[in-house]
Amino acid sequence: MAGQYRSGQYRFRTGDQALVRQINLAVIMHQLRENAPISRAALADITGLNKTTVSSLVRELIERQFVREVGFETPGGGRSAGRLAMMLTLDPEAGYIVSAEIGVDFLLVICTNFAPEVIWRCKENINPDMGQQVIFDRLLALLHQAVANGCKTCHTLLGVAVGVPGLVDQASGTLLFAPNLRWENVPLRPPLKEFIDAPLVVDNEANMAALGEHYFGAAQGYDDVLYISAGVGLGGGLVHGGRIYGGVSGFGAEFGHMTMDPEGELCNCGNRGCWETQVSQRALFRYLRRAVGQGRASLLIEMTEDNLGQLTVPIVVEAARAGDPLALEALDVLGRQLGIGVASLVNALNPQLVMFGGILSLAGKFLLPVVEQELRRRALRWNRDAAQVVLARHGFDACVMGGVARVFQAILAEPDTLRRETAWAMTTANA
Amino acid sequence: MAGQYRSGQYRFRTGDQALVRQINLAVIMHQLRENAPISRAALADITGLNKTTVSSLVRELIERQFVREVGFETPGGGRSAGRLAMMLTLDPEAGYIVSAEIGVDFLLVICTNFAPEVIWRCKENINPDMGQQVIFDRLLALLHQAVANGCKTCHTLLGVAVGVPGLVDQASGTLLFAPNLRWENVPLRPPLKEFIDAPLVVDNEANMAALGEHYFGAAQGYDDVLYISAGVGLGGGLVHGGRIYGGVSGFGAEFGHMTMDPEGELCNCGNRGCWETQVSQRALFRYLRRAVGQGRASLLIEMTEDNLGQLTVPIVVEAARAGDPLALEALDVLGRQLGIGVASLVNALNPQLVMFGGILSLAGKFLLPVVEQELRRRALRWNRDAAQVVLARHGFDACVMGGVARVFQAILAEPDTLRRETAWAMTTANA
Repeated sequence: MAGQYRSGQYRFRTGDQALVRQINLAVIMHQLRENAPISRAALADITGLNKTTVSSLVRELIERQFVREVGFETPGGGRSAGRLAMMLTLDPEAGYIVSAEIGVDFLLVICTNFAPEVIWRCKENINPDMGQQVIFDRLLALLHQAVANGCKTCHTLLGVAVGVPGLVDQASGTLLFAPNLRWENVPLRPPLKEFIDAPLVVDNEANMAALGEHYFGAAQGYDDVLYISAGVGLGGGLVHGGRIYGGVSGFGAEFGHMTMDPEGELCNCGNRGCWETQVSQRALFRYLRRAVGQGRASLLIEMTEDNLGQLTVPIVVEAARAGDPLALEALDVLGRQLGIGVASLVNALNPQLVMFGGILSLAGKFLLPVVEQELRRRALRWNRDAAQVVLARHGFDACVMGGVARVFQAILAEPDTLRRETAWAMTTANA
Repeated sequence: MAGQYRSGQYRFRTGDQALVRQINLAVIMHQLRENAPISRAALADITGLNKTTVSSLVRELIERQFVREVGFETPGGGRSAGRLAMMLTLDPEAGYIVSAEIGVDFLLVICTNFAPEVIWRCKENINPDMGQQVIFDRLLALLHQAVANGCKTCHTLLGVAVGVPGLVDQASGTLLFAPNLRWENVPLRPPLKEFIDAPLVVDNEANMAALGEHYFGAAQGYDDVLYISAGVGLGGGLVHGGRIYGGVSGFGAEFGHMTMDPEGELCNCGNRGCWETQVSQRALFRYLRRAVGQGRASLLIEMTEDNLGQLTVPIVVEAARAGDPLALEALDVLGRQLGIGVASLVNALNPQLVMFGGILSLAGKFLLPVVEQELRRRALRWNRDAAQVVLARHGFDACVMGGVARVFQAILAEPDTLRRETAWAMTTANA
């Protein structure tokens, strides 16, 4: 089956020559992404397509400016005789991609070429108290700067992605609920579409981050990936068979709102004892403040000049490195709660890779050994043996790199559907 | 993309005429399953394929005996004029399917035709203490009876499925771990393959049950289904996009071994506080025995003639119906634990349908209202609104109907690959 869908006129997609061409274009694009520089002959070898078909597909991709010839192969590479082959790569200048994240306390926008290399990046701190309109205006200003920088070198805007810390209705591009921003029912697509004349994706930041690590980061080559991101809240993403697992309406992977302690702390979502109330910087700081409030000694008191309201994750990590017993204890407690949840998800989802990201991953050295302990104690042996636990690679950029991956994924799957003639435009009237 | 795979020679499957034919055969088979009786013209209408293509594909399926003509349509069905069309259905006599479940305390084997209608069914009680060899010999005897009954009417054995209460390595057909049977590393495929010369599937019983309900039961038309089966243990199955979600090695959906209470009861898997230690008949009976041991009054004492070792789920349900406060309380506690876990999974997986099966579903009337309460209290509103909670339809037959669905799924996807000339054979030498 080429894929079953309900959205179109027909319940099942049928096959025809157009589908065959699209499938084979996509296969060539994927191989170029993974194995470039590569020759036409080598493409034929690793895809099983015949050389005439490969040549014809490559010609089309070169015409569409997604692929370029980069010179003849280096001689002596195992070939005993004959002409040297022309090597191909994806064309970094095929166009540019703009990807943004609305975090709980920051905005981050990047612009990449089609390599993808980051050609522009800007991060600004925000505060939910600034209000929705102010934050959104700042985002628009950053997006305009990104576009201005992108079109200097690449001309064509291939797509724009925006990641947000909450539930998204992807069809309408509405942010339904972001508990830690205290935003509800915010339509993001219409105001963005006023400025952006290119494919636009809005999705949950952790879903995007998971895909970003799968495409460009620590999860390359792993098709079943569990991504846990702990910062202000606890976000989750799941890649299954190389694609984001969204559930029926795209609200899946809200692992941070699994109930771990039915009578536990109140969560911003309204429930009690969510995993996020145990594993987040808020949970870490609460633990430390309570302990100090009860008279416990700690380096942290001095390091924050007796104002634990100034705690940050890097400060706690520094204290732990210096051997502060309270900081070590707090990270041990948090690591244990993290490990219990990860063990449950390893049993429930049987991932090949568990990736831990977000600001709390700065404490990975202290947390991961405890997570491994809980996995040994609680996960089924076979599920545990199948899963490797690693730190995410892209750190703060995981979500925005995931946005780039979303645009990539759409182009790789259907390189022939992008309307290049219109895709470049981004109105700058209100900039 | 027609499907990405790593198992073959090539990393990505490319497209060609053979793929187009296979896709379109599969689409026709799916439409026949869902909409028969149906005419060639109507098949062309709902698939978008042209009539010549449909006629050619249908001719092939008739030759392969998967499809039959069942007579002309009834006149007056909306057609104003013209010839009446010949109607088509899947051919119930295309062959027979044998499907078995090894439960913790029973063996169940059915034989169906290709409608599928159950043409033979046999259930036997077993006890793990009987030992592996005795149980396996009983299974073989039942399989032979099923085959003997199947080939009387249908001649061709299309496939055999075996569901087991544990982790399965599907490639080798090995039962890796069935905690409640106390079986570990049991190779099931080789001894079965000595007798069965047809496609053989071995999988976890709850995975199969989920697919069975998706194909033939309460989950028809729902592509994202969470299935929870509570009996001796707590099994889980997940259908995503119409297929079983297995994770990277097929060990996914072990929801019963998610940690709900880190310091809770010891589980047969070795962990503490697994969901299964809270939601299973064992948990229910333990709660009741402890309460009675502490002097609580209950109808159950009389109903079991003062021997609570004789408790069964139907007895507890009867006591609850009669208003016994202890039975009602025990079901309320169990329903609450069930609801907390379901709420977590609704947030984590965003299913469209939550199905509750297994022997404890006999108490559905008492459990589901409590589950709904916990969902309202704990699940994100959007995830909750997307999910409907229902009882499974097939009851005891859910797993074996799922085995039939697995064989169906393989045939529908690739009706041209079944080697009919050899598929019928099942050696009866050792029967």
